Amino acid sequence: MDIDEIIKALSNPVRREILVWLKDPVTNFPEQEHALELGVCAGKINQRSGLSQSTISSHLAVLQRVGLISSHRMGQWAFFKRNEEAIQAFLDEMNKQL
Amino acid sequence: MDIDEIIKALSNPVRREILVWLKDPVTNFPEQEHALELGVCAGKINQRSGLSQSTISSHLAVLQRVGLISSHRMGQWAFFKRNEEAIQAFLDEMNKQL
Repeated sequence: MDIDEIIKALSNPVRREILVWLKDPVTNFPEQEHALELGVCAGKINQRSGLSQSTISSHLAVLQRVGLISSHRMGQWAFFKRNEEAIQAFLDEMNKQL
Repeated sequence: MDIDEIIKALSNPVRREILVWLKDPVTNFPEQEHALELGVCAGKINQRSGLSQSTISSHLAVLQRVGLISSHRMGQWAFFKRNEEAIQAFLDEMNKQL
Protein backbone atom coordinates (compact mmCIF):
# COMPACT_ATOMS: atom_id res chain seq x y z
CA MET A 1 0.00 0.00 0.00
CA ASP A 2 1.51 3.30 -1.11
CA ILE A 3 -0.12 5.61 1.37
CA ASP A 4 1.29 8.82 -0.20
CA GLU A 5 -0.19 7.90 -3.56
CA ILE A 6 -3.53 6.94 -2.04
CA ILE A 7 -3.77 10.25 -0.19
CA LYS A 8 -2.92 12.12 -3.38
CA ALA A 9 -5.63 10.20 -5.22
CA LEU A 10 -8.12 11.13 -2.51
CA SER A 11 -7.19 14.81 -2.50
CA ASN A 12 -9.45 15.28 -5.52
CA PRO A 13 -13.12 15.72 -4.57
CA VAL A 14 -14.42 14.11 -7.79
CA ARG A 15 -12.43 10.96 -7.04
CA ARG A 16 -13.82 10.86 -3.50
CA GLU A 17 -17.30 11.35 -4.89
CA ILE A 18 -16.88 8.42 -7.29
CA LEU A 19 -15.96 6.22 -4.32
CA VAL A 20 -19.05 7.41 -2.45
CA TRP A 21 -21.30 6.65 -5.45
CA LEU A 22 -19.81 3.17 -5.84
CA LYS A 23 -20.65 2.42 -2.22
CA ASP A 24 -24.30 2.14 -3.13
CA PRO A 25 -24.65 1.31 -6.85
CA VAL A 26 -28.30 0.25 -6.55
CA THR A 27 -29.31 3.72 -5.39
CA ASN A 28 -26.87 5.71 -7.48
CA PHE A 29 -26.99 3.80 -10.77
CA PRO A 30 -30.50 2.29 -10.93
CA GLU A 31 -30.66 2.66 -14.71
CA GLN A 32 -27.70 0.32 -15.41
CA GLU A 33 -28.84 -2.71 -17.39
CA HIS A 34 -25.88 -4.97 -16.69
CA ALA A 35 -25.84 -6.66 -13.28
CA LEU A 36 -24.40 -4.26 -10.72
CA GLU A 37 -22.41 -7.12 -9.16
CA LEU A 38 -19.96 -6.66 -12.05
CA GLY A 39 -19.43 -3.09 -11.00
CA VAL A 40 -20.66 0.16 -12.48
CA CYS A 41 -20.07 0.93 -16.13
CA ALA A 42 -17.64 3.81 -16.80
CA GLY A 43 -20.27 5.43 -19.04
CA LYS A 44 -22.77 5.57 -16.16
CA ILE A 45 -20.25 7.15 -13.83
CA ASN A 46 -19.46 9.57 -16.60
CA GLN A 47 -23.14 10.46 -17.10
CA ARG A 48 -23.76 10.98 -13.44
CA SER A 49 -20.71 13.22 -13.03
CA GLY A 50 -21.59 15.53 -15.91
CA LEU A 51 -17.85 15.73 -16.66
CA SER A 52 -16.15 14.76 -19.92
CA GLN A 53 -15.40 11.14 -20.65
CA SER A 54 -11.65 11.72 -20.68
CA THR A 55 -11.77 13.44 -17.28
CA ILE A 56 -13.68 10.56 -15.71
CA SER A 57 -11.45 7.98 -17.39
CA SER A 58 -8.40 9.58 -15.93
CA HIS A 59 -9.95 9.77 -12.45
CA LEU A 60 -10.91 6.09 -12.65
CA ALA A 61 -7.40 5.23 -13.79
CA VAL A 62 -5.89 7.03 -10.79
CA LEU A 63 -8.23 5.27 -8.34
CA GLN A 64 -7.45 1.93 -9.94
CA ARG A 65 -3.68 2.50 -9.99
CA VAL A 66 -3.60 3.09 -6.24
CA GLY A 67 -5.82 0.05 -5.66
CA LEU A 68 -8.98 1.71 -4.32
CA ILE A 69 -11.15 0.35 -7.15
CA SER A 70 -10.86 -2.61 -9.48
CA SER A 71 -12.15 -3.04 -13.00
CA HIS A 72 -13.73 -5.81 -14.99
CA ARG A 73 -13.84 -5.66 -18.78
CA MET A 74 -16.54 -7.27 -20.84
CA GLY A 75 -16.56 -6.63 -24.56
CA GLN A 76 -16.66 -2.91 -25.09
CA TRP A 77 -17.60 -2.19 -21.47
CA ALA A 78 -15.50 -1.48 -18.41
CA PHE A 79 -17.08 -1.93 -14.99
CA PHE A 80 -15.68 -0.53 -11.78
CA LYS A 81 -16.19 -1.44 -8.17
CA ARG A 82 -14.69 -0.43 -4.85
CA ASN A 83 -11.89 -2.48 -3.40
CA GLU A 84 -13.33 -2.54 0.13
CA GLU A 85 -10.33 -4.31 1.59
CA ALA A 86 -7.87 -1.69 0.34
CA ILE A 87 -10.12 1.19 1.43
CA GLN A 88 -10.43 -0.28 4.92
CA ALA A 89 -6.69 -0.95 5.14
CA PHE A 90 -6.03 2.67 4.20
CA LEU A 91 -8.50 4.00 6.80
CA ASP A 92 -7.01 1.72 9.46
CA GLU A 93 -3.54 3.01 8.66
CA MET A 94 -4.66 6.67 8.79
CA ASN A 95 -6.49 6.13 12.07
CA LYS A 96 -3.42 4.44 13.53
CA GLN A 97 -0.86 6.89 12.18
CA LEU A 98 -2.64 10.14 12.96
CA MET B 1 -13.06 22.13 7.74
CA ASP B 2 -11.68 22.16 4.20
CA ILE B 3 -11.24 18.44 3.66
CA ASP B 4 -9.57 18.82 0.24
CA GLU B 5 -6.92 21.08 1.71
CA ILE B 6 -6.37 18.81 4.71
CA ILE B 7 -5.89 15.78 2.47
CA LYS B 8 -3.43 17.73 0.32
CA ALA B 9 -1.52 18.73 3.45
CA LEU B 10 -1.37 15.09 4.53
CA SER B 11 -0.22 13.82 1.15
CA ASN B 12 3.32 14.84 2.10
CA PRO B 13 5.07 12.19 4.23
CA VAL B 14 7.21 14.75 6.10
CA ARG B 15 4.07 16.56 7.24
CA ARG B 16 2.52 13.29 8.40
CA GLU B 17 5.75 12.48 10.24
CA ILE B 18 5.68 15.83 12.05
CA LEU B 19 2.16 15.04 13.27
CA VAL B 20 3.33 11.64 14.49
CA TRP B 21 6.29 13.20 16.36
CA LEU B 22 4.02 15.79 17.99
CA LYS B 23 1.80 13.01 19.30
CA ASP B 24 4.44 12.10 21.86
CA PRO B 25 6.67 15.13 22.51
CA VAL B 26 8.16 13.69 25.72
CA THR B 27 9.63 10.75 23.82
CA ASN B 28 10.47 12.55 20.60
CA PHE B 29 11.82 15.85 21.96
CA PRO B 30 13.28 15.02 25.38
CA GLU B 31 16.01 17.62 25.01
CA GLN B 32 13.64 20.62 24.81
CA GLU B 33 14.19 22.97 27.75
CA HIS B 34 10.90 24.87 27.54
CA ALA B 35 7.86 23.10 28.96
CA LEU B 36 6.46 20.73 26.36
CA GLU B 37 2.93 21.81 27.28
CA LEU B 38 3.56 24.93 25.18
CA GLY B 39 4.24 22.75 22.19
CA VAL B 40 7.45 21.78 20.47
CA CYS B 41 9.86 24.47 19.30
CA ALA B 42 10.20 24.78 15.51
CA GLY B 43 13.98 24.49 15.89
CA LYS B 44 13.67 21.09 17.58
CA ILE B 45 11.37 19.79 14.86
CA ASN B 46 13.84 21.12 12.36
CA GLN B 47 16.77 19.37 14.08
CA ARG B 48 14.97 16.08 14.29
CA SER B 49 13.95 16.16 10.62
CA GLY B 50 17.44 16.84 9.28
CA LEU B 51 15.81 19.10 6.66
CA SER B 52 16.47 22.79 6.09
CA GLN B 53 14.83 25.38 8.30
CA SER B 54 12.88 26.87 5.42
CA THR B 55 11.54 23.47 4.37
CA ILE B 56 10.30 22.70 7.87
CA SER B 57 8.87 26.21 8.27
CA SER B 58 6.86 25.81 5.15
CA HIS B 59 5.59 22.35 6.20
CA LEU B 60 4.57 23.76 9.61
CA ALA B 61 2.80 26.67 7.89
CA VAL B 62 0.80 24.27 5.71
CA LEU B 63 -0.24 22.14 8.70
CA GLN B 64 -1.21 25.25 10.62
CA ARG B 65 -3.15 26.80 7.72
CA VAL B 66 -5.38 23.71 7.43
CA GLY B 67 -5.86 23.66 11.21
CA LEU B 68 -4.09 20.39 12.08
CA ILE B 69 -1.59 22.13 14.38
CA SER B 70 -1.61 25.39 16.30
CA SER B 71 1.25 27.64 17.28
CA HIS B 72 2.20 29.65 20.29
CA ARG B 73 4.81 32.41 20.05
CA MET B 74 7.01 33.42 22.93
CA GLY B 75 9.73 35.96 22.25
CA GLN B 76 11.92 34.58 19.49
CA TRP B 77 10.42 31.07 19.76
CA ALA B 78 7.52 29.44 18.02
CA PHE B 79 6.00 26.32 19.55
CA PHE B 80 3.72 23.91 17.77
CA LYS B 81 1.24 21.37 18.96
CA ARG B 82 -1.36 19.10 17.41
CA ASN B 83 -4.92 20.26 17.21
CA GLU B 84 -6.40 16.95 18.37
CA GLU B 85 -9.98 18.06 17.84
CA ALA B 86 -9.39 18.95 14.18
CA ILE B 87 -7.41 15.76 13.53
CA GLN B 88 -10.19 13.65 15.04
CA ALA B 89 -12.88 15.54 13.11
CA PHE B 90 -10.96 14.90 9.89
CA LEU B 91 -10.57 11.17 10.64
CA ASP B 92 -14.26 10.90 11.53
CA GLU B 93 -15.20 12.53 8.25
CA MET B 94 -12.92 10.23 6.23
CA ASN B 95 -14.23 7.15 8.01
CA LYS B 96 -17.78 8.25 7.36
CA GLN B 97 -17.27 9.36 3.76
CA LEU B 98 -15.19 6.43 2.52
